[in-house]
Amino acid sequence: MSFAKLDSLHRQLEALSHAQAMLGVDEAVNMPAGGGAARATAMATLAGMYHDLASSAAFGEMLYQAETEQLTPEQSAAIREAKREYLNRSCLTSDFVKRKVETCMRSEQAWRAMRREGDWKNFLPLLSDVVSMTRDEAAMRGARLSLAPYDAMMEQYDPGNRTAWITPLFNDLKLFLHDFLPKALEAQRQKPKRKKLKGPFPIAAQKALGETLMKAVGFDFNHGRLDVSHHPFCGGVPSDVRMTTRYREDEFLSSLMGILHETGHGLYEQGLPKSWSHWGVGAARGMSVHESQSLFNEMQLARRRAFWKFALPQARKAFGAKLKGYTLDDIMRHVNHVAPSLIRVEADEVTYPLHIIMRYELEQALIDGDLEPRHLPDAFNAKMKQYLGLTPSNPMVDGPLQDVHWPAGAVGYFPSYTLGAVMAAQLWEAMGMGNTIEKTKLDSDGLLEQKTWLSQSIWNIGSFESTQSLLNNATGQDLSLVSFQAHLLKRYGTSVADG
Amino acid sequence: MSFAKLDSLHRQLEALSHAQAMLGVDEAVNMPAGGGAARATAMATLAGMYHDLASSAAFGEMLYQAETEQLTPEQSAAIREAKREYLNRSCLTSDFVKRKVETCMRSEQAWRAMRREGDWKNFLPLLSDVVSMTRDEAAMRGARLSLAPYDAMMEQYDPGNRTAWITPLFNDLKLFLHDFLPKALEAQRQKPKRKKLKGPFPIAAQKALGETLMKAVGFDFNHGRLDVSHHPFCGGVPSDVRMTTRYREDEFLSSLMGILHETGHGLYEQGLPKSWSHWGVGAARGMSVHESQSLFNEMQLARRRAFWKFALPQARKAFGAKLKGYTLDDIMRHVNHVAPSLIRVEADEVTYPLHIIMRYELEQALIDGDLEPRHLPDAFNAKMKQYLGLTPSNPMVDGPLQDVHWPAGAVGYFPSYTLGAVMAAQLWEAMGMGNTIEKTKLDSDGLLEQKTWLSQSIWNIGSFESTQSLLNNATGQDLSLVSFQAHLLKRYGTSVADG
Repeated sequence: MSFAKLDSLHRQLEALSHAQAMLGVDEAVNMPAGGGAARATAMATLAGMYHDLASSAAFGEMLYQAETEQLTPEQSAAIREAKREYLNRSCLTSDFVKRKVETCMRSEQAWRAMRREGDWKNFLPLLSDVVSMTRDEAAMRGARLSLAPYDAMMEQYDPGNRTAWITPLFNDLKLFLHDFLPKALEAQRQKPKRKKLKGPFPIAAQKALGETLMKAVGFDFNHGRLDVSHHPFCGGVPSDVRMTTRYREDEFLSSLMGILHETGHGLYEQGLPKSWSHWGVGAARGMSVHESQSLFNEMQLARRRAFWKFALPQARKAFGAKLKGYTLDDIMRHVNHVAPSLIRVEADEVTYPLHIIMRYELEQALIDGDLEPRHLPDAFNAKMKQYLGLTPSNPMVDGPLQDVHWPAGAVGYFPSYTLGAVMAAQLWEAMGMGNTIEKTKLDSDGLLEQKTWLSQSIWNIGSFESTQSLLNNATGQDLSLVSFQAHLLKRYGTSVADG
Repeated sequence: MSFAKLDSLHRQLEALSHAQAMLGVDEAVNMPAGGGAARATAMATLAGMYHDLASSAAFGEMLYQAETEQLTPEQSAAIREAKREYLNRSCLTSDFVKRKVETCMRSEQAWRAMRREGDWKNFLPLLSDVVSMTRDEAAMRGARLSLAPYDAMMEQYDPGNRTAWITPLFNDLKLFLHDFLPKALEAQRQKPKRKKLKGPFPIAAQKALGETLMKAVGFDFNHGRLDVSHHPFCGGVPSDVRMTTRYREDEFLSSLMGILHETGHGLYEQGLPKSWSHWGVGAARGMSVHESQSLFNEMQLARRRAFWKFALPQARKAFGAKLKGYTLDDIMRHVNHVAPSLIRVEADEVTYPLHIIMRYELEQALIDGDLEPRHLPDAFNAKMKQYLGLTPSNPMVDGPLQDVHWPAGAVGYFPSYTLGAVMAAQLWEAMGMGNTIEKTKLDSDGLLEQKTWLSQSIWNIGSFESTQSLLNNATGQDLSLVSFQAHLLKRYGTSVADG
């Protein structure tokens, strides 16, 4: 009885989410600027309606009531996940949520303008407000969930994330990279230089190539599409996944690799268990698993020589004479180029974890009160110098405020990026072990075989299992650095441009 | 207190409408086919949530409560309109609405398939179900609103529509057209034949021309856009109007005139009073006023010689040599060609009202029980023979079931099309009287002057006035045939191809 009522309430929640997801896509892809104000009001109102429905005391009572009813194992799992979500949602009062949304929106909007000006001085008070509210939020979440404040913040993005196991793992990775990065750079120096790509690469041809490779890795265009937006994303709903990219005509690889990254997210969404789409148990497990899927596709698969043996002829078809004279080695040197840089989103696979780890360390200090916002630039610069040997020129431009996460109050999100990278390497290796795929001979059939494996091991399971069980069932092991380190050593550790 | 609560509830209703409108646009313009099932579920759920919110007894009580509060004249008008909407919504029980939606959806879906086959025999039982439910609906609406059943059906689309004044007006129009149509055809025979357009007219050029003319008549692309869909429509929300068209390459006029028609709807929506966007009083007045705006643009303005003096040079720019050798007269002969035909949506301005009047007469007979669905084809064919001298070949293809309205249960909608045409002619004449626009010398400035007049007379007033007051204030007169008949006589009554 309660379960049936909850099922119907979850249909309402799903309809509201469906609307929010599609309005978000439309805003980024199609909406004329003048539509923005009314769109923002509509979306905020829908979010409020969602929150009112899903965090009411009546909703909570039904969840506890449903547990006493005769349920199938799947229904029990659905209730378990719904309770977890309910608990996370009801950590904060409506009033607090409203104030936090307002504070963060003001901060994020100011950030967009002040970042262009490099205006750290005027942004600091806004950031201080956000940090102060986020400390309160972390304390409230921690109290309700019986977790340390920072663990409670991570919990909302990635259930099960705890500093107790992430910190040692990141420390090991930091040590490894401290030793490995100079070696990778030295190996790269001994290889021939990259041969510059010469555009223009027409956008229509880039799009066609992108769609060809999306199809090759199994993206279902009957349940999704590829559009253009300023910031690439993967949005929509599992039955209708909306991916975007942006194109530049002077080269084609950054857009293409971006497409393949988002396609990993899209495949996960398309592969989720459809009959549970309206319950949390039918949704993606969390941000690190999600990121593991985009990185599986982009890093493990699409930067591999075997993939480019398949993809380069497709690229030649798309661009004709433009790629004449470029060998497979030339392309591999582009896609696997290592270069320490100040900008996280432009970082390569080897240096990227260091960007994440410094943010992970700093945001903990911010939450715990060990670091005040006014000291953030100095603390960031010290780590940047230590980890990558570089010095930012401005906090807003290439320093700690280059990313939207902190200005928007999203603390606890960063570690999932690198946990996902580590997980992707472990999945790739496990797939190779138990599977017939010849990693050095990928073709269309090989690519789809991989889809079958991921679908069974990850996508189809939604949130029926914890992240840890998912990974254990798929790979036979807990999360560890072994595969990731081996992968980096193999790809970047020798002077041969191999994948 | 009640007003403030209602204001906030109306924000929720507006957010749900906003979502429904945009999901509808996305479905027609962008959605991949596989997204359809989940989209339908989401939209039905949102519609149910809207209905539950807006037809609850609590909502009704707040409306009556608000009337006793200290209100501004605008707030009073808002409550008056909200009560009217509430009354119309609460004529039917939730259970009845649900059954009707199911019956009509089943009928409409079957219709789409059976129309292609011309399968009247198998469609008849489905239509009978719809007619039977619609009779019940009309009786319930009539009882609640103290109106005759058919009047009560019209009321939901177009407040104030009554057979008591529409029937005499339509009878006069029928008599006029019975006499005039042969004369218009004779006048046309004495003119030179139409000179066939020779494509291909590239779609990109057609789109550019369409957008140029949309801008010329005042469409604001900061608050709207033009896309492509199978069935052209004007959707979205006032702050973000989404128009569509479809293109064929062998000629460009049908798409262009369609764009100018939808632009009339779009201008009305863009011009509605923004601060009341979440209340009914801020919405368009009804279907006949809406249609008057699309026809003002398409028929009164865009099929006029003065308009084409301005538009033809733009078309020449778009299509280059393709229009070489076509004079202004050649174009006028295309846009003002009269030809009795069996298909309503392809009808010209002179014969169109006859298609409407026969449907108006037949749907009343269906509702009143004077006509049974099984006799509909014979009754339709008799009128088609009498009014236009033509005989349909098949009820589903070019007979009474050629339109989606009846299969979808939308009875009472048809008369608004012709009431709108009559109104458009009256508005055009009034605008000329009180305005400096030289109707024979339209240019960009002239087009925008017209926008100002319509904005003040119609768009900005939303539903603050009744249709009758709107028209009276704008033209100084009640609705009458005088201007429309004079317009037809002038445009089609002589052998000169004038506008």
